[in-house]
Amino acid sequence: MTAPFAFALLKTDGAARRGEIVTPHGRVQTPAFMPVGTQATVKGLTPDIVRATGAAIVLGNTYHLMLRPGAERIAALGGLHAFMHWPLPILTDSGGFQVMSLSQLRKLDENGVVFRSHLDGAMVELSPERAIEIQALLGADIAMQLDECLRLPAGPTEIRRAMELSLRWAERSKRAFEGRARAGYALFGIVQGGDDISMRCESARELTAMDFEGYAIGGLAVGEPQAVMLKIVEETAPRLPAERPRYLMGVGTPHDLLEAVARGIDMFDCVLPTRNGRHGMAFTRHGAINLANARHAADPRPLDEQSAHPAARSYSRAYLHHLVKANEMLGAVLLSTVNLAYYQELMAGMRAAIEAGRFGDFRAATIAGWGRADIPAL
Amino acid sequence: MTAPFAFALLKTDGAARRGEIVTPHGRVQTPAFMPVGTQATVKGLTPDIVRATGAAIVLGNTYHLMLRPGAERIAALGGLHAFMHWPLPILTDSGGFQVMSLSQLRKLDENGVVFRSHLDGAMVELSPERAIEIQALLGADIAMQLDECLRLPAGPTEIRRAMELSLRWAERSKRAFEGRARAGYALFGIVQGGDDISMRCESARELTAMDFEGYAIGGLAVGEPQAVMLKIVEETAPRLPAERPRYLMGVGTPHDLLEAVARGIDMFDCVLPTRNGRHGMAFTRHGAINLANARHAADPRPLDEQSAHPAARSYSRAYLHHLVKANEMLGAVLLSTVNLAYYQELMAGMRAAIEAGRFGDFRAATIAGWGRADIPAL
Repeated sequence: MTAPFAFALLKTDGAARRGEIVTPHGRVQTPAFMPVGTQATVKGLTPDIVRATGAAIVLGNTYHLMLRPGAERIAALGGLHAFMHWPLPILTDSGGFQVMSLSQLRKLDENGVVFRSHLDGAMVELSPERAIEIQALLGADIAMQLDECLRLPAGPTEIRRAMELSLRWAERSKRAFEGRARAGYALFGIVQGGDDISMRCESARELTAMDFEGYAIGGLAVGEPQAVMLKIVEETAPRLPAERPRYLMGVGTPHDLLEAVARGIDMFDCVLPTRNGRHGMAFTRHGAINLANARHAADPRPLDEQSAHPAARSYSRAYLHHLVKANEMLGAVLLSTVNLAYYQELMAGMRAAIEAGRFGDFRAATIAGWGRADIPAL
Repeated sequence: MTAPFAFALLKTDGAARRGEIVTPHGRVQTPAFMPVGTQATVKGLTPDIVRATGAAIVLGNTYHLMLRPGAERIAALGGLHAFMHWPLPILTDSGGFQVMSLSQLRKLDENGVVFRSHLDGAMVELSPERAIEIQALLGADIAMQLDECLRLPAGPTEIRRAMELSLRWAERSKRAFEGRARAGYALFGIVQGGDDISMRCESARELTAMDFEGYAIGGLAVGEPQAVMLKIVEETAPRLPAERPRYLMGVGTPHDLLEAVARGIDMFDCVLPTRNGRHGMAFTRHGAINLANARHAADPRPLDEQSAHPAARSYSRAYLHHLVKANEMLGAVLLSTVNLAYYQELMAGMRAAIEAGRFGDFRAATIAGWGRADIPAL
């Protein structure tokens, strides 16, 4: 369990990359999608179900876990892998994004952030050093630096201030991480710079000079149009070192994933497959399907007869419609499962296409396939 | 899939019975516990998870299914087994109990009941003949007669009126069932008579003369003390034919099951393991455990290290406490699973003990074991 962290770039097809990440808890084939296990659980799903969708790594949220049950508590119970009974790799975010989106922020300065817990109103501090400490207590295979994530649109002065602060926090995060000497574990830096390409490039250059095990592009999927996001990805990704994994944080729809892989991204996380599953939406090769719609009430067809996952083949749309209308928990469970399985199938398809040098064809065929469902893919 | 319904009494130990039921969808070893799949789903659990707890038969609720999605809809989709993807036996109740407990009853007369749907206020009729028709549309392996179920306490005049009406409905149910000629499917009569032993005996005698494939004891677990329920079971069970299965409806706690098997009952259903699981309570060999209690917050022990089911062995009490406090769906899923697995383990233990002629010892040891947990077994 102490294989050093490594990334191998196995094949490229245009800007799209096929790789493999090695972590202390196992290997991850890239491009990879990481289901989100916010509070030490992918909502509603047992670890066995998550694994059976094809997921090889999950994401845990530092912000939620530091507040409840607490990082020291999880460490005392053997770390996050043991706590949530997930034996494969875990990436944790730094907590910064949720501090800024969920809590009542009290102070943000050079040192870090002070905020009120959304659970009990307690004042909590988070600094680059504390974020690293928490992620070490959790036992994350891949930790993320603390950064400041702005909402877009924002002005250039504000974007520069946050980008430069994030760079200084990156340096402190790296020092703190190296001070803990967790052999084989990795720390990723996060590119900031809002929607300003030149600031993104500056951030990427400075971070690369610090030599992280991997690089994330943060501060996207925060309200900007898809074209803006893709433009930034397209300009930023090639400025990151080819021999390190690239992670686009909090993204996205199936179409976002396809387009971001086409622009050189290796890793993703997003709540969409599970959150939308809880709200009655299925993602399939035929596009997104809103099961609450009455047109499905008598439809005996499964969501996707070609899926490799039994949940997409075994239950009729009529049954899933019934579960959604009756507000039955099993509807959320099955649709979250179907969605995660589809995301993994999409990633596996992209990996195979890159290996075969046919990524462009795969991308076109996949997008064409989405046209046949209830509503177009998001 | 058309084996005729049959029951074999394999062994007795005192009044406790070890038997086997044969249905068109498979065999059920008795004493048996049936998880409740109210709205065509055991709440929160996939059919695979339900099977893995050891369940060999589930119960469906006619009342809920007739209102949503409708019996004709389910029939058009291939019946309830196909609809909910449960290939093993299904018993359906007649709908009477829920009509009287959930809906706004508009009229109850010789013909049947008219009620307002709790979903949309629509006026709906249910007669003995319609209850049989619905259960045939659902494709239940075992159907139940329509009966009138009183709340206790009730006066003797009221108890007699409801008991006699239930007998006349039993006859009409049987005629309707035989008219449909579903080879191999079974219809059970239901003994009523409130807490009046002589009326219970009269009901049992009259029903036995009608020759049902099995007999239920209904109208219990509706608010009376356990001692009253057990007294009625003790007096009623031996007046039912030994060569037919005996089903105690809507019961109960682990202790209820143990005591009712000791008095000659073969089959049970109850929402308790799943409902209490959704509310943070675990049933184990150590008794019932309230996971919401802060004493579990740092407890690394699993719920039951001796359980045959991984869910009871794999997760710490601290993790389950966390899921319950964080109101995470997975808490409900895991505790429902653990509880159903414990109920099945308890039934399997009773079956083995009866086979070995050691039921009395098993009962005493099981009750003693419950003293060691958070709170005594209910």
